[in-house]
Amino acid sequence: MSHSLKVNASSQPYVDLPSICAALFEAKARRGVTFDQIAKAIGRDEVWVAAMFYGQAKLSEEELTKLSQLLEVPQENLVAELGPNWFPHRGIGPMPPTDPVLYRLYEGVMVYGNAIKAVIHEKFGDGIMSMIDCKVNVDRKPDPKGDRVVLTFDGKFLPYLKW
Amino acid sequence: MSHSLKVNASSQPYVDLPSICAALFEAKARRGVTFDQIAKAIGRDEVWVAAMFYGQAKLSEEELTKLSQLLEVPQENLVAELGPNWFPHRGIGPMPPTDPVLYRLYEGVMVYGNAIKAVIHEKFGDGIMSMIDCKVNVDRKPDPKGDRVVLTFDGKFLPYLKW
Amino acid sequence: MSHSLKVNASSQPYVDLPSICAALFEAKARRGVTFDQIAKAIGRDEVWVAAMFYGQAKLSEEELTKLSQLLEVPQENLVAELGPNWFPHRGIGPMPPTDPVLYRLYEGVMVYGNAIKAVIHEKFGDGIMSMIDCKVNVDRKPDPKGDRVVLTFDGKFLPYLKW
Amino acid sequence: MSHSLKVNASSQPYVDLPSICAALFEAKARRGVTFDQIAKAIGRDEVWVAAMFYGQAKLSEEELTKLSQLLEVPQENLVAELGPNWFPHRGIGPMPPTDPVLYRLYEGVMVYGNAIKAVIHEKFGDGIMSMIDCKVNVDRKPDPKGDRVVLTFDGKFLPYLKW
Amino acid sequence: MSHSLKVNASSQPYVDLPSICAALFEAKARRGVTFDQIAKAIGRDEVWVAAMFYGQAKLSEEELTKLSQLLEVPQENLVAELGPNWFPHRGIGPMPPTDPVLYRLYEGVMVYGNAIKAVIHEKFGDGIMSMIDCKVNVDRKPDPKGDRVVLTFDGKFLPYLKW
Amino acid sequence: MSHSLKVNASSQPYVDLPSICAALFEAKARRGVTFDQIAKAIGRDEVWVAAMFYGQAKLSEEELTKLSQLLEVPQENLVAELGPNWFPHRGIGPMPPTDPVLYRLYEGVMVYGNAIKAVIHEKFGDGIMSMIDCKVNVDRKPDPKGDRVVLTFDGKFLPYLKW
Amino acid sequence: MSHSLKVNASSQPYVDLPSICAALFEAKARRGVTFDQIAKAIGRDEVWVAAMFYGQAKLSEEELTKLSQLLEVPQENLVAELGPNWFPHRGIGPMPPTDPVLYRLYEGVMVYGNAIKAVIHEKFGDGIMSMIDCKVNVDRKPDPKGDRVVLTFDGKFLPYLKW
Amino acid sequence: MSHSLKVNASSQPYVDLPSICAALFEAKARRGVTFDQIAKAIGRDEVWVAAMFYGQAKLSEEELTKLSQLLEVPQENLVAELGPNWFPHRGIGPMPPTDPVLYRLYEGVMVYGNAIKAVIHEKFGDGIMSMIDCKVNVDRKPDPKGDRVVLTFDGKFLPYLKW
Amino acid sequence: MSHSLKVNASSQPYVDLPSICAALFEAKARRGVTFDQIAKAIGRDEVWVAAMFYGQAKLSEEELTKLSQLLEVPQENLVAELGPNWFPHRGIGPMPPTDPVLYRLYEGVMVYGNAIKAVIHEKFGDGIMSMIDCKVNVDRKPDPKGDRVVLTFDGKFLPYLKW
Amino acid sequence: MSHSLKVNASSQPYVDLPSICAALFEAKARRGVTFDQIAKAIGRDEVWVAAMFYGQAKLSEEELTKLSQLLEVPQENLVAELGPNWFPHRGIGPMPPTDPVLYRLYEGVMVYGNAIKAVIHEKFGDGIMSMIDCKVNVDRKPDPKGDRVVLTFDGKFLPYLKW
Repeated sequence: MSHSLKVNASSQPYVDLPSICAALFEAKARRGVTFDQIAKAIGRDEVWVAAMFYGQAKLSEEELTKLSQLLEVPQENLVAELGPNWFPHRGIGPMPPTDPVLYRLYEGVMVYGNAIKAVIHEKFGDGIMSMIDCKVNVDRKPDPKGDRVVLTFDGKFLPYLKW
Repeated sequence: MSHSLKVNASSQPYVDLPSICAALFEAKARRGVTFDQIAKAIGRDEVWVAAMFYGQAKLSEEELTKLSQLLEVPQENLVAELGPNWFPHRGIGPMPPTDPVLYRLYEGVMVYGNAIKAVIHEKFGDGIMSMIDCKVNVDRKPDPKGDRVVLTFDGKFLPYLKW
Repeated sequence: MSHSLKVNASSQPYVDLPSICAALFEAKARRGVTFDQIAKAIGRDEVWVAAMFYGQAKLSEEELTKLSQLLEVPQENLVAELGPNWFPHRGIGPMPPTDPVLYRLYEGVMVYGNAIKAVIHEKFGDGIMSMIDCKVNVDRKPDPKGDRVVLTFDGKFLPYLKW
Repeated sequence: MSHSLKVNASSQPYVDLPSICAALFEAKARRGVTFDQIAKAIGRDEVWVAAMFYGQAKLSEEELTKLSQLLEVPQENLVAELGPNWFPHRGIGPMPPTDPVLYRLYEGVMVYGNAIKAVIHEKFGDGIMSMIDCKVNVDRKPDPKGDRVVLTFDGKFLPYLKW
Repeated sequence: MSHSLKVNASSQPYVDLPSICAALFEAKARRGVTFDQIAKAIGRDEVWVAAMFYGQAKLSEEELTKLSQLLEVPQENLVAELGPNWFPHRGIGPMPPTDPVLYRLYEGVMVYGNAIKAVIHEKFGDGIMSMIDCKVNVDRKPDPKGDRVVLTFDGKFLPYLKW
Repeated sequence: MSHSLKVNASSQPYVDLPSICAALFEAKARRGVTFDQIAKAIGRDEVWVAAMFYGQAKLSEEELTKLSQLLEVPQENLVAELGPNWFPHRGIGPMPPTDPVLYRLYEGVMVYGNAIKAVIHEKFGDGIMSMIDCKVNVDRKPDPKGDRVVLTFDGKFLPYLKW
Repeated sequence: MSHSLKVNASSQPYVDLPSICAALFEAKARRGVTFDQIAKAIGRDEVWVAAMFYGQAKLSEEELTKLSQLLEVPQENLVAELGPNWFPHRGIGPMPPTDPVLYRLYEGVMVYGNAIKAVIHEKFGDGIMSMIDCKVNVDRKPDPKGDRVVLTFDGKFLPYLKW
Repeated sequence: MSHSLKVNASSQPYVDLPSICAALFEAKARRGVTFDQIAKAIGRDEVWVAAMFYGQAKLSEEELTKLSQLLEVPQENLVAELGPNWFPHRGIGPMPPTDPVLYRLYEGVMVYGNAIKAVIHEKFGDGIMSMIDCKVNVDRKPDPKGDRVVLTFDGKFLPYLKW
Repeated sequence: MSHSLKVNASSQPYVDLPSICAALFEAKARRGVTFDQIAKAIGRDEVWVAAMFYGQAKLSEEELTKLSQLLEVPQENLVAELGPNWFPHRGIGPMPPTDPVLYRLYEGVMVYGNAIKAVIHEKFGDGIMSMIDCKVNVDRKPDPKGDRVVLTFDGKFLPYLKW
Repeated sequence: MSHSLKVNASSQPYVDLPSICAALFEAKARRGVTFDQIAKAIGRDEVWVAAMFYGQAKLSEEELTKLSQLLEVPQENLVAELGPNWFPHRGIGPMPPTDPVLYRLYEGVMVYGNAIKAVIHEKFGDGIMSMIDCKVNVDRKPDPKGDRVVLTFDGKFLPYLKW
C-alpha cells in the first residue's frame, strides 16, 4: 500500500534543485515503489536512482520516458527540467553535514581518509580513486548481532599524468 | 629492498599526533614492509593498521609487542606513546581536504550522501550506519579498462532509540 | 486556560522543517497542553516529543494517530508530512548557537568535553557514548538557593570495532 | 600496576595549556591512579578533576598541596603554573570537534538542543541552565544489552533579569 | 510630531524575528514615542524595551497589555506572537557585525576583553559576569569636547561551582 | 605576600604579543601587586594597565620608567619591546571567544547590540560610540544577593560626516 | 537620453536594504542623471550620494525633498523608508568580496594595510584614521598610458585616549 | 636620537615573512630614520618602502645596495632573502583584520565599496581600478578641528577585455 | 531539433543574477542554438557568451540587439536588465565550489597555483596575469585514449608599479 | 651568474612540505638554473618541475638521480624525503589565496567557472575535465601592447559513469 508525502519544496535541499525533484519524491511515495523497483524499471542501480532524485545524476531521454511512465509524471515536465538541456550542478550542503547519517560518512573521511590514501598509494602508486567513473552501492547484510550496512565505492584508479 | 624515509615531523598531520607516529612511518620504510604485511603479523587488517599509523586506532598490549618486534622500534617507546594510557584523539584535518585523494571521498559524501541516506532509510528504517562498529577495506580490482579501487565501509546499522 | 500562538514559519528553524512543524506548535498552544502531557498521551518522553516537534524524531503510525487526536490536527496532514515516507534530516543550526540556552550546552562541550572523554575512556576503554541509542531527559530539581535543571544523556557505550 | 605515558606537549590541546598539564597526565599514568582516586584524595569529583587536568578549572591552595603529594609533582611547579595567580582560559578547540566522542556531544546539542530549550522554558520560564554553577557527572550503568554512559549536567536555573 | 516608517520585513534582522517586530517599529514611529517613553509607560528601562522590539526579551501579560494600548497594536496580535507561548530565540547576526555601531562594541570585546577578564579575576576570583542577570544602560553624558555615550553592563558575578 | 607565576609564552595569546608581555605578568605576580596598584603608580586606570599588559595599549616613556621601577623589569627591555618604536597591533583572538568570561561580553553584543544601537540613534542621531576615544571601567558593586560587576564603556559620540 | 533599468530586488544586495533602494536606481536610470548631477542638486558629493543609494548614509529631510523632486519619486515613500525614523544598517557583504572591483580594494587593505598603518603611526602616533569622520572621493585622472582612478579617503586622525 | 626595538620574530606577521624583515624594522629603529628618509635615500615613496619592510614589494639590486648602506645591514643578507631569486608572496592576514587601524580600511571597503564601484562604472564604464599598477600615498593634512589622514590610491583603470 | 528547458529561477545561481538570465537559458534551449552559434551571431567567443548568460559580462547595445533577434527575447527586456545602466556584479559562489567540474578548476589553483606563479615570475618578473584583460577558451582535442578539454587563459602580464 | 637565496623554512608553505623543498629552491638559485633548464635535464615540463619543487608531484627514481646531479643535492637526502616511500599530500593554502597572482586564478574560477562548465557540457556532455590526467603549461606570448601569459590546462574529459 502506498502513502502520501508532502515535501516542503522551499526548504533545503529542494530549494536549490530543479523544482521537479520534490514532485519526484511525492510521486514515488504515491506509487509506493522503492528506489530498487524504479532502478529495475529504468535499467539502473538504486543508489544511482536515488542520486538522480536529488538532482545529482543525468537521465538519458529513454530513461526519462520510462521514469515518466512508472511514476505517472508528465514526460514534458521531466524533459523540461531534467532533459537534454539540463546538467546537474552537483554537491548538496551544508558541510560538515548536520544529519547524523551523513555526518558518519564525513567522519569516515576524517578518521580513515589518510589511511585509505596510504593503502591506495601502496597498492596503486601515485594517483586517486575516481569519483566520476565510480559506482556506489548500499547493501543490507544480515548479522545476528544486528544487520549491517555495506557501502561500497567502486572507482577507477587514475594515475597522475606526468608531462 | 627497503628504502629510507624522512618525515617532516613538525608538519601536518604529524605535529598533532603522538610523536612516535613519524617514527613508525620511517621504520616501516626502513623495514620495507607493507601495511598488509604488518597487518598479518599483528592479526589485523591493513586499513586498520594504516589508521593506527596515523594515531586513529588503539593497539592492545599484545599488538604493541608484535609491532615493536616487526618494526624494531623499542617497545617502551611504543608503550609510552601508544600504550594503555593513551587514547586516540581522532580526526585529521583540514576539512574540506586539499589533497585530491581525500577530496574525492569528501566529494562522494557531498554528491551521493543524500542518496545513500535515502537508500539506508528505505532498507533499514530510521537510523544510521555506525562509523564505530565499522570495518573499512580497500581492494584492487583488475579491470582491462584500468584497475579499480574498491572501498568498502561495513558498519552496523543503529536504529534510533525512542524513549 | 490555553493561549494563542502565531509562528513565523518563514524564519529559522521552521523554514527548514516540514511545514507542519509550525502548525504543531500552534496547535499545542491552542490546546494548552505541555510536552509532558503529549508525551503521556502518545506513550513517549517529553524531550523526545519536543524533539519531534522540531522534526528531529520519527513517529510511528500509531503515534501519529494519537497526536492527531490530541492536538486536533488532521491525521492526513500529519501522515503526509511526518508519516512513513518521511525521514528526519537532523541537526538545527546555526553553530555555534547564538541563543544563550543553546550556547551554554555548546560551552559545556567546549569546556568539559575533553574531561568527559577522558573519564569515559577510563571507565569503558576506547569507544563512544552513542547519540543514536540515547535518551535525553530534563528535570527540575528544587533547591533553596534556586531550582536546578538536571539534564541527562543516557547513551549506550559503543566500543571501537577492530578488524 | 602503573604504565608510562609520554605526551606530545607541542600538539593540541597541550600547546595552549599551562605547560604543567602534560606533566600532570604523565604523573597520573606513572602513579597508576584514576581520576576518581585523585578526586577522592583532594575532595572533589572525578569529572572536575579531569577538567582541571585540561586547565579548565582552578585549584585552591589546599587542593594544590594534596595534588602535589598524590602525584609527586613538586608543589612549587604546580603553584607557579596553576596557583593563585593563574586563572583558567576555558574552552578547548577545535569546533566542531573532530573526535567522535566529543562530536557526539556536539551532535546532541545540534539535534536535541532546541527540544531541551523548549522543555526548560515550559518547566522554568524564560532563562537558562547555568554552565558556571553546574556539576557534570559521568556514570557507568550496567545493561545486559551493553553498558551505558550516563552523563548528567546539574546546573542552576537562571531567570532573565528584567530591568 | 510623528513620522511614518516602512520596514522591509523580509530583510535582516526582521526575517528571523516574530513578524510583529516590524509592526512594532512602525507603530512606534507612527505614535512618535521614544523607547524611554514606552519604557516609562510599561515600567521598564529603555534598553530593555529596545531589546524587546528586536525579539530579545519576553514581556509579561501586563506589559503586553500596556504596550498594546500605548502603540495601538491589537492586543491579540501581540499575545499571539509575543505572549506566554513564545520564548525569545536570542542572538542577532551576523558576527562579526558589519555595522560600525555594533562593530565598535565587538572591537571592545576583542581589544579590552582579556583586560576586563583579568580585572574581574583580580577583584572577584574565578567566575564570570552574568549576561542573564544583567542590566544594560545607555546614557548621554554632555561634554564640551563632544557628548559621550556611557554604556553600562551591570551583571551579577557568578563564581565557578566546584563539585 | 606575593606568589610565583610561570606563563607558557608559546601559547595563546602570548605567542602573538611582544615577548615581554609574559615577563610583565610574571613580574606582577612576583611583586604581588594589583593592576590598580600599578595604575596608581603610573597614573593610569587599572583596565588600561591590564590592556597594556596584553599589548593592547601604548606607554609613554615616562610610564615605561615608572613601570620598570615598580616591577623591577630592566627599563631597556621594556623600551626595546614596548617603547617609542613599537605600536600595538590590537585585537586578541579567537572570535567567538571560547572563554566564558569573554563570551558573555560577546553575547552581550549579539543580544543587546541592536538595542544599544537603536537607543544611541534615538539619543544622538546617526553616528557611533568611539572605541578609540573610550574609557573602560570595571567596578565591584556590593549586593546582598551577590556582588555585581559593573562594566562601563565611556566613549565619545562621533556623528557621521556628510560630504 | 535616458535608459530603462530593472533591478532584481530579491537579489543581493537589494534584499537587505530598504525596499526603496531598488526604486532609486531605477528612477536614476529613467531620469538619465549621474550621481554627480544628483549630488549637485542636493548639495552633496557623488560618492556620498552613491553610498546613500545603497542604504549606507542618512539623508536630512531637506535632502529627501530635493531627491524626491529630482527623481520624481513620491516624497512620502522616501520619508517612510529613508526618513527620520530610519537609520542605516551599514556594511554590504559578502566578504571577501567576489566582484573584482571590490576585491581590488580589499586586496589593497591586505597588501598595503600594514604599511599604511606603519606610516600613520610614524606621522601621527598611536591612533587611527576615522571611517566615520571621513570623506571618500573618486576622480578620473587623464593619462596617456590609460586614464587612472584616483580614490581618496580623507579621514580625521583619532588618537587613542589614555585613561 | 634613535631608539632600540626588539621584534618578536616568531609572532604574526613576521613568522610568515622572510626572516630579514624583523631585522629591517630593528635596523630602522637603531638608525632612527623614517620611512620617508629611507624612501628618499633609495628613490621611492614612503608607503612603498613600508610595504617592502613587510615583504610586500620587490627591490631592485640597486635599491638593495642603497638600503644595505643606509641601514647598515649586510648586503649579502639582504640579497639572499630579498634579492633577485625572491618574489613577494603578498597578502598579510588575518581578515577581517583585528587591529582597528586596519579594520577601518576594511570597513571602508564594506561600507563604501559598492558606491565606489558604481561611480567608477559611471565615469569609466565596465572595468576595475588596478591594484597592481597603483600608487598608495598617506599624507597628514593639518586641520584646526584635528589633523586628517589623506589616503590615496591612484590606480590605472583597466577595461574588461571582450573576446 | 530544439528542446524545452525550465530553470528554477529562485535557486542558485539565478536568484542572485538579473532575472532575465534564467529566461536567456530557456530561450537558448527553445531556439536550439549553441553558445558558439550565438557567439558567431553577435561577433564574440563562446566562453564570453556563456559568461554573459551568467551575468558575468556586459553587452554593448549592438550586441543586445543581435541577441534579442537571435533568441527572440524582447529587446526592451534585455535592455532593461542588461543594458547601459547595468553593470555586472561578478563572482558566482559558493567557494570552494561543490560541483565537480568547478572544483577541479579550483583544485588546479590549489595544486598548481604556486608552480604557475613561480614560472610566471621566472619568465616575466614581479607581476601578475590579468584576469580583466584576459581571454578564456575551451576546446575539444580529439585523442584516441579519450578526447581532452583544452582550457586556455590568455591574459596580459601586468608588472607591479613601483612608486 | 647565479645568486644566493635563503628561504624561511618555518614559514608557509615550506613548513608543511618535506623539509628538502626549501633546500631545492636554494640549490636552484645557487646553480642559477631555470625551471625549464631543470625540466629539460630530467625530461619533464617546467610547470611540472615547479610543482614538484612545492611537493605537489612525485619523482621517479631516475628523475631523482638526475635532479641530484643537476642541483648538487645529495641523492640520499632526495630519496629519503621525496623517494619511493613518499607520496605528495597535495594542496597548498590558504584559500582564497591572498597573493594577487594566485588570487587572479581563483577569480578566474569564480567569474568564468560556470561558463566553462556550460561549454564543456555543450561540447562533451555530462562529465568533467580531469585535473589528474592533466598537463599545465605557461607560455609568454609577445604582444606590442604588453606581452601576455598564456596558461593552458589540457585535461582528459571524464564522462560520468552510470551504473
